Amino acid sequence: MRVVVALGGNALLKRGEPMTAEVQRGNVRRAAIALAELAREHEIIVAHGNGPQVGLLALQASAFEAVDPYPLDILGAESVGMIGYLVEQELTNALPGDARCATLLTQTEVDPADPAFQQPEKPIGPVYSTEAAQRVRHEHQDWHLVEESPGKWRRVVPSPAPQTFTQIEAIRILVEQGVIVICAGGGGIPVIRNAQGDLEGIEAVIDKDLAAGLLARELEAEAFLMLTDVEAVYQDWGTPDQRPIREITPRELGGMTFAAGSMGPKVKAACDFAARPGRVAGIGRLEDARAILEGRVGTLVRLDA
Amino acid sequence: MRVVVALGGNALLKRGEPMTAEVQRGNVRRAAIALAELAREHEIIVAHGNGPQVGLLALQASAFEAVDPYPLDILGAESVGMIGYLVEQELTNALPGDARCATLLTQTEVDPADPAFQQPEKPIGPVYSTEAAQRVRHEHQDWHLVEESPGKWRRVVPSPAPQTFTQIEAIRILVEQGVIVICAGGGGIPVIRNAQGDLEGIEAVIDKDLAAGLLARELEAEAFLMLTDVEAVYQDWGTPDQRPIREITPRELGGMTFAAGSMGPKVKAACDFAARPGRVAGIGRLEDARAILEGRVGTLVRLDA
Repeated sequence: MRVVVALGGNALLKRGEPMTAEVQRGNVRRAAIALAELAREHEIIVAHGNGPQVGLLALQASAFEAVDPYPLDILGAESVGMIGYLVEQELTNALPGDARCATLLTQTEVDPADPAFQQPEKPIGPVYSTEAAQRVRHEHQDWHLVEESPGKWRRVVPSPAPQTFTQIEAIRILVEQGVIVICAGGGGIPVIRNAQGDLEGIEAVIDKDLAAGLLARELEAEAFLMLTDVEAVYQDWGTPDQRPIREITPRELGGMTFAAGSMGPKVKAACDFAARPGRVAGIGRLEDARAILEGRVGTLVRLDA
Repeated sequence: MRVVVALGGNALLKRGEPMTAEVQRGNVRRAAIALAELAREHEIIVAHGNGPQVGLLALQASAFEAVDPYPLDILGAESVGMIGYLVEQELTNALPGDARCATLLTQTEVDPADPAFQQPEKPIGPVYSTEAAQRVRHEHQDWHLVEESPGKWRRVVPSPAPQTFTQIEAIRILVEQGVIVICAGGGGIPVIRNAQGDLEGIEAVIDKDLAAGLLARELEAEAFLMLTDVEAVYQDWGTPDQRPIREITPRELGGMTFAAGSMGPKVKAACDFAARPGRVAGIGRLEDARAILEGRVGTLVRLDA
């Protein structure tokens, strides 16, 4: 079975843990062991998030005052170099000696007319005091800042829907030749086609689950797994009646309401992917990758559920 | 003709220029135009340096004190994400619409017994005062520091010879399918095989010209171009008799003496590559790429020169 796996950026650099290289490598190593187990039975393609990592790079860039911080597309490219390298190395070590892995930079094209550009809402980078926010607004007149809680400001950027990957043919060539491809890191680097038809990086972030779901459709995968730090999708989450959903159809799942920030995009990506017969989408914990696919834990979404 | 091209990291972020994203993108754009001209007639593979870029990332990481700077292999991976993205995007824009480019992360395996490990001599990162150097030495007991000039200390790391690329098969697959591959950035990320046979990143740098030369041999390229900011290799450089070498055999060139830092590795890489019949190595300016290959400017190294 061809399986596209999306790793949460938070699963590699967890909230509350020190953001050191050692900690990140340890988390990547655990992820690689779960992926290698999956790869023994299936053809896998690996996508991943980059939220905490691009946040760290943005903080480092801001701290070095001699050079203006690079824009978000370039910081994103840096972060996928970092994460791609760690995932590729640990995965190569966890796999049998003859397995081949390759990490491809991925540019994700979005529609310049996407409504997200009118309503930037994805917070990125440091938290600013009201005073600092005024200074930042003066330095970067095109930035949008919102007050998340009293006196705590953050920059928000658009999160447009992924449309195509500039590198999809190269990814397909490698997958067909049996290479385990790591790509669409951080949802891919956000680009548009400008008036001249040229690629142009933009200050946006792309949801990595939506991007990985598009990748799964483009590669005609049979399964699409979103691996994170929650055990499953829960019905009535946060109420005394909460219970994990084991199997569900896209129609049923699509009728429920979830938090916009985290579970929302996962549910949308799962429903989009599982809308066709013969396809299954799974959501669950990183270490359960194989068990989710076998329907033993986590949540499976498919037409004949 | 199959041509491996090595771009100097200094050609993309020039000494003395501000290290901003705009400046770097402008330089990359000029490089992409020269590469696109070459790609109209030849099958090209693009390697590049990363010295100034990894230096900037190291400074940014040091400036943000809340998290210890990441080791050199990870910083290198970040830098090839950044540079690979810019090169790929600008090259895609400079090429006809149906051209396909792909950037592959590359791990370069080196020999743990390489004598360079006994004699680290490649300076990296910031310049420290004597006082700062003492502090740094205390914090990083495994670092080697040298006093480059009185009161100015720098960290030095080994620069071992590249042996193989973990991703060479994936690179070959894409090249055979007509994809323009950008790889071996910064000489590739330096790794060894440890006692367990696992890949392990190391604190070293790999000379990008030696790595690109190895890539050219592994891919059975007919030509290998090292593009930089000097017009040609000069005989009697720095004397009143200095003159550019237009064509020369590897044996003759190998008998001359050049500066260890910059021209030395280029000359060695050119001689290694051109040691077999039917192969030509070229050295010259970025904007002259095509003219160098045609023997009109720059230096060509080949057996029948």
